[in-house]
Amino acid sequence: MKALKQRILDAIQADLPAIEDALRDNLEPYLPVVSHVADYIMFAGGKRIRPVLMVLCARVCGYKGSYDKTLSVAFEYLHAATLLHDDLVDGAEVRRGNPVAHGIWGNPAVVLVGDFLLARSVSLAARSGRMSIVEAICRTTAEMSEGEIYQLLHKGDLTLTESRYMDVIRRKTACLIQTACRVGALLAEAPESKVQALDAYGYNLGCAFQIVDDVLDYTADEKTLGKAIGTDLREGKVTLPLIYALGRAHPEDRDTMEAVFGAETITKTDLEMMIELVKRYGGIAYAKGRAKALADQARNCLDLFEPSPTRNVLEAMAEYVLVRQV
Amino acid sequence: MKALKQRILDAIQADLPAIEDALRDNLEPYLPVVSHVADYIMFAGGKRIRPVLMVLCARVCGYKGSYDKTLSVAFEYLHAATLLHDDLVDGAEVRRGNPVAHGIWGNPAVVLVGDFLLARSVSLAARSGRMSIVEAICRTTAEMSEGEIYQLLHKGDLTLTESRYMDVIRRKTACLIQTACRVGALLAEAPESKVQALDAYGYNLGCAFQIVDDVLDYTADEKTLGKAIGTDLREGKVTLPLIYALGRAHPEDRDTMEAVFGAETITKTDLEMMIELVKRYGGIAYAKGRAKALADQARNCLDLFEPSPTRNVLEAMAEYVLVRQV
Repeated sequence: MKALKQRILDAIQADLPAIEDALRDNLEPYLPVVSHVADYIMFAGGKRIRPVLMVLCARVCGYKGSYDKTLSVAFEYLHAATLLHDDLVDGAEVRRGNPVAHGIWGNPAVVLVGDFLLARSVSLAARSGRMSIVEAICRTTAEMSEGEIYQLLHKGDLTLTESRYMDVIRRKTACLIQTACRVGALLAEAPESKVQALDAYGYNLGCAFQIVDDVLDYTADEKTLGKAIGTDLREGKVTLPLIYALGRAHPEDRDTMEAVFGAETITKTDLEMMIELVKRYGGIAYAKGRAKALADQARNCLDLFEPSPTRNVLEAMAEYVLVRQV
Repeated sequence: MKALKQRILDAIQADLPAIEDALRDNLEPYLPVVSHVADYIMFAGGKRIRPVLMVLCARVCGYKGSYDKTLSVAFEYLHAATLLHDDLVDGAEVRRGNPVAHGIWGNPAVVLVGDFLLARSVSLAARSGRMSIVEAICRTTAEMSEGEIYQLLHKGDLTLTESRYMDVIRRKTACLIQTACRVGALLAEAPESKVQALDAYGYNLGCAFQIVDDVLDYTADEKTLGKAIGTDLREGKVTLPLIYALGRAHPEDRDTMEAVFGAETITKTDLEMMIELVKRYGGIAYAKGRAKALADQARNCLDLFEPSPTRNVLEAMAEYVLVRQV
C-alpha cells in the first residue's frame, strides 16, 4: 500500500508546488482575517485530491495550456468553503485533530469567509472563458448545499435507506470530485464521450471515497485518523455500515441499536457495543464491498483513454481510495 | 412625495409580475425547506429595487431580448443570500417587524440556503452566456462578504472615518446596486461609455440609499420603519450621522457619547440623549446633505442617455431615494 501511495505522490509531485502557489496567489483578499481563516482551513494538511484530479483529467485529455493549475484551486476553495460552513452547521469542534475554524474566529467570520471562497472559486472558473465550466461549478455548489441540508434534516433518522444514503454522499462528496474531473476534460476541450467518462470516473471515485470515510469512522486507528472514531454515530449521522447492519439485525439487537442511537448521550461502552453490532451484522464488509465495486467502475471509465502514465495515476487513485487509513 | 413614488410604481408595474414569477420559477430547489427559507426572506415585502434597476438599465440601453426579467432575479437571490447570512452574523432578531429566518429555521439551514441562493444567482448569470456578467456578479459577492467582515471587525470602533465608512457602505450596499445597473447595460450590449455611466449611477444611488438608511435609524417613525430606531447604535454600528457629530462635539459631549456607546447595555434615556446629541451637532443634516449630493451625481450620470420614459424613472428613483421613509 505504501508503494501505491508513493507511486501516486511521485506522479503528482511535479504539479503540487504549482497548485500550492496558485492556492495562495489567487485568494487576493482585502482583509488579513480572510487569509487567516482561509489559510487555516486550506493549509492544515489537506490532500489536494480535487485540484490534482482536475489537473490529471485535463492532462489525460491532452491539455497543453497553462490555466490548469490556477483553475484547479477553484475546487480547493469550494471544498474549503463547504468545510467551513459544514463544520459550523454540524456543530463540529475538531477537524484533523485541530480546533475548527469557527472555534477560533467565531461563526460570523467563518460564514463570510466561506462566502468569499465560494465567490473566488466561480471567479476562477469565469477566467477560464468557458461558460460550461462556470455552470458546472455553480450547479455543484447548489447541489452540495442542498445535500448538507438534507443530511441535517435526516440527522438521527434510522429509516434512511441505502439509496437515500447514496444520494446524500453524491451531493456532499462525490459531486465536487465529479465536477473537478469533468472540468478537467472541459478545459482540455475533450470530446463529449471523454467528458462523460471522466465525469463518471469522478462520481464513482467520489462515492467510493466517502463510503471508505464512513467505514473509517468505525474501524480507524484514532491517532492516524486525527479524531475519535464513532463521531458520525455521536453526531446522529446514519451511514452505510449502520444502514446495512440495521437491515440484518435481530429485532432485539435492532432495538438496542435504536435505543443507543436515540439516547441523549452515548457512553463509551454503548459506542463500543454499537460498533461491535455493526461489524457482527456485516455492515463494514458490505460497505467495503460497495466501495470496491464503485472503485472498479471508476477504473472501467478510464478504458476509453490510451494507456499513459497519467491514466495509470488515475487508476492508482481508484485503487488507493480503498486502502487509505486516513 | 406620494406622487413621486406612484410615478415610479406606475412605470415599473408592467415589469413587476414577470419579476415575481421569475423569482419563484428559477429557484428550483430539491428540498421544500429551501423554498420555505428563501420565500420567507424574499417575499416579506421587499422592494425589488435591484431587479427593477437591472431591467430599467437594460431598457434604457435599448435591450429588446427576453432574458432581462430572469437575469434580474439573480440580484434578488444574491441580496436575499446576504440578508440571511448578515442577519445571522449580526445576531439580528427582527427584520421588517418579523422574526429573522435563523430564529425560525436555525443557523444551519440559513447558512446553507444562503449558499444555495449564491450559487443560483451565478447560475442565472451564466445562462446569459456573457462572461462579463458572471465576473461582475462574482466580484460583487466577494466584495460584499469582505465588506461585512470589515464592518464586523470595526463594530464599536468610534475612530471610523468618513472615508472608511464610505468604503463599508460601498461594499455592503452600493456595489450590488452598482452591479445590477452595470449588468443591465452589459446585457443590452451597450457601449463602454454607457456601461460606465450606469455603473456610476448605481454606485451613487446605492451610497445615497445606504446613507438614508443610516439616517432613518435616527429619525424614522418606528411603526413605518418596522423596527426600533437606534438599532445601529445598539449593535455598535458607527454610521455617518454619528461620525460627523463626534467630529464636532465638545470634548465633554464626546466623552458622554463614547461612554454611552461603549456601555454594556444602552438605556432608553441614554439612547434618546445620544440621538439628541447627534442631531444637535448636525450629524443628520450633514448625512442628508451627503446623500443629496450623491443622488444628484447619480442623476447626472444619466445625461448621456436620450430623454425617455425609462430615463425619467431612473431619475425619479434618484429623487425618491432621498425622501423615502422606510
